[in-house]
Amino acid sequence: MSDTKKRTELHELGRYRLLERLSEGLDPCNRTTAMGLGHDASAMAPTKRRVVMASGLMLEGIHFNLTYFPLKHLGYKSLIAQLGRIYAMNAEPQQAQVALGVSGRFGVEELEELVGGVRLAASRYGVDLVGLDVSSSYTGLTVGVGAQGQCDARELVGRSGAREHQLLCVTGALGAAYMGQQLLERERRVFEANPYAQPQLEGHSYLLERILKPELRGCVAVLAELRQRGLRPTAMTLVNEGLASALLHICQRSGVGCRVYADRIPVDAHAAALAEELRIDPLTAAMNGGEDYELLFSVPVKAHQEVASVEGVSVVGHLTDAGAGAYMVPPHGDELRITAQGWNAIVPGGAD
Amino acid sequence: MSDTKKRTELHELGRYRLLERLSEGLDPCNRTTAMGLGHDASAMAPTKRRVVMASGLMLEGIHFNLTYFPLKHLGYKSLIAQLGRIYAMNAEPQQAQVALGVSGRFGVEELEELVGGVRLAASRYGVDLVGLDVSSSYTGLTVGVGAQGQCDARELVGRSGAREHQLLCVTGALGAAYMGQQLLERERRVFEANPYAQPQLEGHSYLLERILKPELRGCVAVLAELRQRGLRPTAMTLVNEGLASALLHICQRSGVGCRVYADRIPVDAHAAALAEELRIDPLTAAMNGGEDYELLFSVPVKAHQEVASVEGVSVVGHLTDAGAGAYMVPPHGDELRITAQGWNAIVPGGAD
Repeated sequence: MSDTKKRTELHELGRYRLLERLSEGLDPCNRTTAMGLGHDASAMAPTKRRVVMASGLMLEGIHFNLTYFPLKHLGYKSLIAQLGRIYAMNAEPQQAQVALGVSGRFGVEELEELVGGVRLAASRYGVDLVGLDVSSSYTGLTVGVGAQGQCDARELVGRSGAREHQLLCVTGALGAAYMGQQLLERERRVFEANPYAQPQLEGHSYLLERILKPELRGCVAVLAELRQRGLRPTAMTLVNEGLASALLHICQRSGVGCRVYADRIPVDAHAAALAEELRIDPLTAAMNGGEDYELLFSVPVKAHQEVASVEGVSVVGHLTDAGAGAYMVPPHGDELRITAQGWNAIVPGGAD
Repeated sequence: MSDTKKRTELHELGRYRLLERLSEGLDPCNRTTAMGLGHDASAMAPTKRRVVMASGLMLEGIHFNLTYFPLKHLGYKSLIAQLGRIYAMNAEPQQAQVALGVSGRFGVEELEELVGGVRLAASRYGVDLVGLDVSSSYTGLTVGVGAQGQCDARELVGRSGAREHQLLCVTGALGAAYMGQQLLERERRVFEANPYAQPQLEGHSYLLERILKPELRGCVAVLAELRQRGLRPTAMTLVNEGLASALLHICQRSGVGCRVYADRIPVDAHAAALAEELRIDPLTAAMNGGEDYELLFSVPVKAHQEVASVEGVSVVGHLTDAGAGAYMVPPHGDELRITAQGWNAIVPGGAD
């Protein structure tokens, strides 16, 4: 928060003028938006297709730490998180709504930064921001985001359609956001011990970008390619809390088990290099890290060659019957049971 | 929070088992729910109609104070708040999503209480709970709720359709929730000064219910009656932050002014009685109070007789051109300009 910029206190504007200011120029561009900002709710004009909704919270100290998280990036990422869940249903996001809980320590310009990030992400992904609300908060900053999208009924993919013998595939590479988070946390500890210390973040811009300003372009490209090839995933989920959680989501909801081969898991090269330096197992970053915003999906065995040839897709294992459990198979040694993260490990800097 | 009940710590269950437990028996009952809980997002199968969405946050210390707000009521009310906004678009709510931010001071049973309230409201209003998420919070309890509904395209009503000379109507009676809030705040102050003091709440159960467990039945009945009579409001909004804010929402979005007659504003009788006792102007409770969950709407002048004969509807004034401003007309004396509440007054116990 730079103090050289003009700062308008929230009470100077009042809530309605603040919302007006944050909404400036937000005209609908998605053809399905029938009524956007300024009414009690927003309205969409769907075709005969499926409407898909997702919503979630970003809480200060839990999902982000403002000592290193720029507000604009926070806005950007909070929308990406929900758009990712819409894409994970094989649908196209179309509208989004944002509700903020803020205290007086934020000025209007800072909220404009935050909403600016949301707006940037919305415009990049062709989504209309149709709801915007601000209320007071006694404590931390709260960002609530809801997103809505559509797809043809026959394109809709949930977590429950995976069957024994089918293949498990992952988009992109995993672990970069987790290692970026480690870097930021390390610097935060250094800074707290010595406020004059200079951040040691050079050479790590890629990892930092993966945690601070994640993108979904890779997912979107893979989904488009699969659609073009007539390859519909049988089950799919967003990898946003580590691959282990994503695998267990699909196994549990589909009533299957899985075998995932450690040497086929696409660990991000930058992440692997830093993990080695920091003596962290790169597979831990991929399995239990989180916030990769990549997709885990299953396809029938007969699609093996086809799916393996799609750029940005790795076949990492297969599904078994439920009784066989969910295990990771290392190149040597015993299979390792895949476990869900506990309450504390769910989110970076997880709380009590 | 009774300490005689069994308390399961959140970490004993872990997040997934907690969500499972909170989701038990939540099978879809609304015919438009295509995929509910357990996927990345939820999916609806709309007809060719309009899809309507609303979402918002309830923050501890701002929207509720747990010293007097039972968790079950809080869950109930947090859903009602968003269903009200769907009804205010003249649509039928169908699905809802809840995201909680909680700290370790809550046990599993307490979250079950909270979600139990959401579930009760959902079942009473025929709504499916299709999304449920919990994350850690360092500080206060956060409840994020999104709701979705539908209506025929020609039934959709926003805030922007009101025109000069049209009539302004209000459902139900106003001010009861505000006076209930005053009672609770008074008791909280007494309790903080003397923890052995007995609450003085006898005889006020109606006012307390209006703040702690509001209903939308009155609104729903009026909307059904208007539809049956072929009377579509030209503009409509939820009265959830006082009548003054609702009036200004419609005036601003429709580009009109208004005259509202003080003696036609339906002040709740219980609220008026207590207001007199506490030396509060009953009109203040109605105009600036909030959380009434009633509807303000406009209709063409020619509908005057028809709308005035609908049970639970009061015609309170009319719309003027924008230049004439928004004013309340008292029985005697000068017109009073209707002003928006400031930042601090927006919510009960509003924060910095």
